[in-house]
Amino acid sequence: MTTALLTDHYELTMVQAAMNAGTANRRSLFDLFTRRLPEGRRYGVVAGLGRVIEAIERFRFNEAELTWLMERGIIRENLAEWLAGYRFSGDIWGYPEGEVYFPGSPVLSVEGTFAEACILETILLSVYNHDSAIAAAASRMTAMAGDRPCAEMGSRRTQEWSAVAAARAAYVAGFATTSNLEAGRSYGVPTIGTAAHSFTLLHDSEEDAFRAQIDTLGHATTLLVDTYDIDDAIRTGIELTGGRLGAIRLDSGDLAIAARRARDLLDDLGATHTRIMVTSDLDEWQIAALQGAPVDGYGVGTSLVTGSGHPTCGFVYKLVARADSDDPSAPMTPVAKKSKGKNTLGGRKFAMRRRGADGRAESEVIGLGTPPVDDGNDRNLLVPIYRAGELVHHATLDDARRRHEQSRAELPVAALRISKGDPALETIILDSAGDETTNPYQAAPVVPNL
Amino acid sequence: MTTALLTDHYELTMVQAAMNAGTANRRSLFDLFTRRLPEGRRYGVVAGLGRVIEAIERFRFNEAELTWLMERGIIRENLAEWLAGYRFSGDIWGYPEGEVYFPGSPVLSVEGTFAEACILETILLSVYNHDSAIAAAASRMTAMAGDRPCAEMGSRRTQEWSAVAAARAAYVAGFATTSNLEAGRSYGVPTIGTAAHSFTLLHDSEEDAFRAQIDTLGHATTLLVDTYDIDDAIRTGIELTGGRLGAIRLDSGDLAIAARRARDLLDDLGATHTRIMVTSDLDEWQIAALQGAPVDGYGVGTSLVTGSGHPTCGFVYKLVARADSDDPSAPMTPVAKKSKGKNTLGGRKFAMRRRGADGRAESEVIGLGTPPVDDGNDRNLLVPIYRAGELVHHATLDDARRRHEQSRAELPVAALRISKGDPALETIILDSAGDETTNPYQAAPVVPNL
Repeated sequence: MTTALLTDHYELTMVQAAMNAGTANRRSLFDLFTRRLPEGRRYGVVAGLGRVIEAIERFRFNEAELTWLMERGIIRENLAEWLAGYRFSGDIWGYPEGEVYFPGSPVLSVEGTFAEACILETILLSVYNHDSAIAAAASRMTAMAGDRPCAEMGSRRTQEWSAVAAARAAYVAGFATTSNLEAGRSYGVPTIGTAAHSFTLLHDSEEDAFRAQIDTLGHATTLLVDTYDIDDAIRTGIELTGGRLGAIRLDSGDLAIAARRARDLLDDLGATHTRIMVTSDLDEWQIAALQGAPVDGYGVGTSLVTGSGHPTCGFVYKLVARADSDDPSAPMTPVAKKSKGKNTLGGRKFAMRRRGADGRAESEVIGLGTPPVDDGNDRNLLVPIYRAGELVHHATLDDARRRHEQSRAELPVAALRISKGDPALETIILDSAGDETTNPYQAAPVVPNL
Repeated sequence: MTTALLTDHYELTMVQAAMNAGTANRRSLFDLFTRRLPEGRRYGVVAGLGRVIEAIERFRFNEAELTWLMERGIIRENLAEWLAGYRFSGDIWGYPEGEVYFPGSPVLSVEGTFAEACILETILLSVYNHDSAIAAAASRMTAMAGDRPCAEMGSRRTQEWSAVAAARAAYVAGFATTSNLEAGRSYGVPTIGTAAHSFTLLHDSEEDAFRAQIDTLGHATTLLVDTYDIDDAIRTGIELTGGRLGAIRLDSGDLAIAARRARDLLDDLGATHTRIMVTSDLDEWQIAALQGAPVDGYGVGTSLVTGSGHPTCGFVYKLVARADSDDPSAPMTPVAKKSKGKNTLGGRKFAMRRRGADGRAESEVIGLGTPPVDDGNDRNLLVPIYRAGELVHHATLDDARRRHEQSRAELPVAALRISKGDPALETIILDSAGDETTNPYQAAPVVPNL
C-alpha cells in the first residue's frame, strides 16, 4: 500500500508552483522538532523512526494516484512525471528511535531538493507526532511500574491502525506485551490475551466458563474474576486448577483494596504463586498509586493509546536552510519565519547530550552549524539514516527498546517524577563559534496546542 | 488489506476455548454503546459506520494470517479451519451514521453465533471510538462556525491512517473540506491546500514566492501572509493580483486583532472580496470567540484530530443476550455482568427519539425487548445494516452528513451551548411492558476513563 496520498494537498501545490517557478530543485534542509514539551512533561521519547523508514520506502506515486491527482486538477503533467519517478535521493539524519528529546532537539533532519524533502512533511509528522506521544506516556507508565510488566491493551480505544502503531511505540518505551495481533505480526511485539466478561456470560455458569478456558489454555492462564463475585470466582479457579492457576485479572472496583483481598484469599487457598493482573482505567498515576499493592502486572488501555492527556507531541517540520539556486553545489543559507510565538532557529544543527563524570545527563546541547565539543563524557545524538537516498540505518525494534532504557536511565532522577514539571534537561544552543546563544524554544510562551 | 488481525489476541483465545467447549455457536447478541458521554459533552455523534462496513467486508483470514497464528500457537487446527471460511452470517442493526446519541443508546447491535460476533469486537470498537470522537468535536466546531466553512487540516497531528478517518468523520459533522489527499481519494471529501511558510522561505523574497504561487494557482488562491510582516504581505498580494486575490491566511498571533486589521487594510486597498482564513490553534472555543471577527473560514488541526480533549468515546461492546445451546432456534436470554461501576443492561434494545409536536427532540427512549410506542412525532433510530450476512444498508457519506445536520438541528437549543453540561436528552429505559425502569447509565459514577 502506497503512503503517497497520506499527504496534505498543499505539499503538492507548493511543489507544483515551485516547479513552474524554477525553485523546486533548490537544495533545502528541513528540521523536525518541537518548540516545547506537552505541559508538565519532563522528557519526550522518539518513536516512529522505523515506521518512517517503511513509509518513505512505500512513498510511491503509481498510476492510480497520478490519475486521481490529474483528474482533480491538483497536479499538472510536469509534476505527474516527476512524481512517477519519485524516490527520495537526499540525506536524512536524526535521533535514533527510543532516544529521549527536549524542546529544540533536532529529532530528524531531511536534506534534499525542496520538492523531494517538502512532500515528505505530512507523513513524517503524522508518524512522529503519534508514535512519540504514545511512547512518552508509555515511558512514564513503565517507570512507575518498575519491575512489574505492563501490557498494552488499548486497541479498541483508538483507530485500528493507530492501535498497531501504539502497540509498537509502547514496546519501545518498555511495555512487555500487547493485545494487538497485527502488532505481533508486523513488528514482533509479544502478544497476550485470554478472555473477556462475555466469555463467562456465554456459559451457563462461571465454573463452566473457567473450565472451558482452562481446558484450552491450561492452568497457567489468567482468569477474569470480577464478572459476578470475586471471592467465589477465585475459589472456583483455584479448585479447578488444583492451586496451580497462573493468574487472576481484576477489571473493576478499587484495585488496591481488591488486590489485597484477592492476594490474601489466594494465599489462604495455598495459591501463593498465582499472580494478580489489574486492568481497569490505569494510567501512570494509578500505577504509581498501586506500587504498594500486591499486584504483579498492569494492563493499560485508554490512557496509553491517547498519550495520557497528550495525544500529539507538537512536532513541526520547518525549512531551516536552502540554496539560492538550483545548482546542487550552491551553498545553503539559514532561513526562518518571524511569526509571533512560532520562532524557528535557522541553519544546520548538531546535537549532543552533555553528561557529567558519573554518566548522568546534564543538558541537551544544540550546535548551530558546528558540532558541540565533547567534554569527555558526552554523547553524540545524531545518526545517519539515509545517505544520498540510500538507507544506512538498520536498528531493530529491540535496539530502540534498549536505547530508550539506557537514555532514560541516565537522566537526572527528577526526570522520573510523576508530577508536572519543566523539561528535565535544559536545551543549550551554541552558535558556530561554540558560544551560547538565545534559545527561542524554552522562552516561548506556552500555548495549549502548538 | 485484511482487517482480521486488527484484533485483540483474546478474541481468538475465547473463540478457541468456546469451540472446544461446544459453546461457540450459541446464538449471541452484542451491543455497542457508551455508559456516559465524555465529561461535559451534551451529545455524541455516530461516525464510522461506513468504515465498519468496509472493515467487515475485508475481515478475512488468509493463508498468511492463519500461518502466523498457528505458528505462534494462538489458534489450533479446528479454529484455523473455521477462520479460513469466516464470513459474517448474522444480523447487524444500529444508528445510521451522522445520528446523535446519548448514554445507553444502542448504537450498534450484532447478532450471530458467539464466535462470529465476538471476533468483530476490536475492529468495531476501534472504528467507532475513534471516528465518533472526531465527529463529536467536529460537530461542536461547525455549530460554533455557523455559515463559515471549516477546513480540516490536522493530518500531521495524528497517526497517518487516523488522519484519513478523521477527515472523513469531520466531513460527516459538517466540515467543508480536508487537507488530506487520501481522504479525498478514498471517501470523496473535497480537498484544498495552497502553501506553507516553507514556500515563502524557499524564495528570494516574499514577492517572488507569492508570484510563483499566483502564476500556478491563479488569483483565487489563498496567500499565507504571516511569514514576515502581515501588512507588507497583504499589500504585495493585492498588488500582484490587481486586487482580485481570493483569500489570505493568518496562522499566528491574536487572530481576532489580526483579522480586524487585515480586513481594514484589504478594504482600504479595495480588495473587499478577498476573504480571510484563520488557522492557528483553533478549537470550538476559539471559533466561538472569533464569531465577531471578520473571518471567512476556519482551518482546524490539532484540536479536531484529537477530539478536542476527548480522543476516544468510551464505547464498549457487551454480550447482552445468548442462547443456552447451539440450537439456532433456541431462545436467547438476557445476560449482564455485575462488576462495580460497569453495569450493563441485558437484552435486546429498541431505540426511539421522542419528539414534541414542534419536532424538537425531548428524550432518548430505549425499549427492552419491545419497541417503544411512537407518540406521533417520534423517530425510530435503528436501521438494518446486515441481514443474515447480507449488507442491506447503503448510505453514502453525504447521507451521513445530512443525517447529522438534521439530527443536530432537532436537538434542544441547549445542546449547542459550548459550556460543559449534561447530556442534552435524558435516556429513558422502558421495560418490555413499556414501563419506565432504572437507568444504570445516567446514574453511573463518573470515572475518568470508561
